[in-house]
Amino acid sequence: MEYAIGVDIGGTKVQFAVVNRQGEIVSRYLVPTEADKGAGQLMDKLLSGIDRMMNAAQQHGEVCGIGIGSAGQIDYQEGVVLYAGDTLPGWTGVPIKQLVSNRFGHKVYVDNDVNVIAFAEKRYGAGIGYSNFVCLALGTGIGGAVMESGRLLRGVFGGAGELGHVCVDVNGPRCSCGNNGCIELYASGSGIARIGREMQGNGSALYSWKPHSREIIHAWLHNDEGAALVMTKVIRALGAAIAGYIHTFNPEAILIGGGVAEAGPRFFAELEQEVDVRTSSYMSKCCRIIPAGLGVDAGVIGAAALVWNHNDEGELNYVI
Amino acid sequence: MEYAIGVDIGGTKVQFAVVNRQGEIVSRYLVPTEADKGAGQLMDKLLSGIDRMMNAAQQHGEVCGIGIGSAGQIDYQEGVVLYAGDTLPGWTGVPIKQLVSNRFGHKVYVDNDVNVIAFAEKRYGAGIGYSNFVCLALGTGIGGAVMESGRLLRGVFGGAGELGHVCVDVNGPRCSCGNNGCIELYASGSGIARIGREMQGNGSALYSWKPHSREIIHAWLHNDEGAALVMTKVIRALGAAIAGYIHTFNPEAILIGGGVAEAGPRFFAELEQEVDVRTSSYMSKCCRIIPAGLGVDAGVIGAAALVWNHNDEGELNYVI
Repeated sequence: MEYAIGVDIGGTKVQFAVVNRQGEIVSRYLVPTEADKGAGQLMDKLLSGIDRMMNAAQQHGEVCGIGIGSAGQIDYQEGVVLYAGDTLPGWTGVPIKQLVSNRFGHKVYVDNDVNVIAFAEKRYGAGIGYSNFVCLALGTGIGGAVMESGRLLRGVFGGAGELGHVCVDVNGPRCSCGNNGCIELYASGSGIARIGREMQGNGSALYSWKPHSREIIHAWLHNDEGAALVMTKVIRALGAAIAGYIHTFNPEAILIGGGVAEAGPRFFAELEQEVDVRTSSYMSKCCRIIPAGLGVDAGVIGAAALVWNHNDEGELNYVI
Repeated sequence: MEYAIGVDIGGTKVQFAVVNRQGEIVSRYLVPTEADKGAGQLMDKLLSGIDRMMNAAQQHGEVCGIGIGSAGQIDYQEGVVLYAGDTLPGWTGVPIKQLVSNRFGHKVYVDNDVNVIAFAEKRYGAGIGYSNFVCLALGTGIGGAVMESGRLLRGVFGGAGELGHVCVDVNGPRCSCGNNGCIELYASGSGIARIGREMQGNGSALYSWKPHSREIIHAWLHNDEGAALVMTKVIRALGAAIAGYIHTFNPEAILIGGGVAEAGPRFFAELEQEVDVRTSSYMSKCCRIIPAGLGVDAGVIGAAALVWNHNDEGELNYVI
């Protein structure tokens, strides 16, 4: 059997897996990122984690290559980190592909973590059968990836798809990117917590939960009145942003994953209603809003899929 | 010499031209759309205008085909109007390609009017040398088209690029699409007029001009204090939207045309400053904001270019 090593480098954890062509994980490993300890220790962790997976894989069969998804802007052709910002301090400029292939002598492919999720969803998950879809990862921040006519949207240096940084309120709070009222400030985990804190600041007794997104979502699902006021704001902002994505990309589906999406069916039902109102009917009737299918494993499965995509089509950028 | 007939069907006028491979117009004709008279009279105008251009072209040389850009959502493969809305009442569903080719027996290509402008700018105008750019047409409304890795963004039925319908203020006024605070409500001709009227409603003596975008822009360029307040709002909203496009598409350039762009260098200078503040520096430093190069002729030149694109590459969707 043929296997690929898939790695998903996030701000809080690094996941490793041995994955077969069917997207099934046969071995896995996870370590905390400890990003504050710097890029050197992260590279050490990356290399030793891959080493561990190589040993595991060789018990099963042949290793065909190593795929790595990383947070930040990635030059997917050279496999270099273009910009990682505060999520992974010191990671900007690291030539991941070169360092990993020097060590292991295998083919190595590197891409942005949300792009990799889009590849996974297209091949094995909720994106099967769609050539035009948008992936939104609602985590601590908001990441995006766009599949258009079966191709991943790249832009000039691979930076396309930063969908967390579209403005939904020019009079809203300042975002780290410099704009005001980016959707990341409303519908990410930290955005939900921010709205919660802001509303608690009003001093009303309605807001009894801790201002953390999981707590707020939990309270909302248990019909807490204050949490409902927060989530109305969240869904309204996200609905407005998604309506914009639909007019921009004319997709068949919006796939939503990440911790916030775990709010479940009620979240999707209310969001879909909000989007419907805000979108021209001839556009919205062609587009479904659905949960991503692969959950927390999407990153490693998609990273491994980089190897299959490349082997199968000879061209990393295209997926059929 | 070889020629193509180019037609640009807009909400107020229909332009016709005979165009050579170099994008030079050798003959032209223009009629008012009179959209309220319905689709039948518009088709009559279209056919008789093309007929006139065929006669003009045949004096010069051979006609290779007919290219038509139309307002609305166009199925560019079938050449049918998918949705034209209030701009061209009754135009939805019209099989333009079939009707025109039945009459003239030439190859006929039909596409959305702003897509056609993007083709023209890519081949002959401000888009030369760029594989990744966004076209914004700031007219009565706002139209958009996106060139990514040398390909026009299409989406599932060709509806992608409706960039006038991205929200910049979820608390803003309701837009015809159903969303609130779409950028079209701020930075189109009608949007500028709307803001002007709204500010005049405050009753201040500052606002002495007629609430029409040309008047407001003219007053602004002559240092009128009230017009400056309007244009500050316009540029702020447009800067926020463009920052979103840059994060979304990672383009090399934003090309801006249409009546509002005729405000000229001061408009572009202030807009660029606004965008810079609102965009991550690693994204904005790769992206220029520039005027479209072909002005009011971009539509007919781009429509004719549909013929050359198809002849040269065999595939309408790709432009090198």
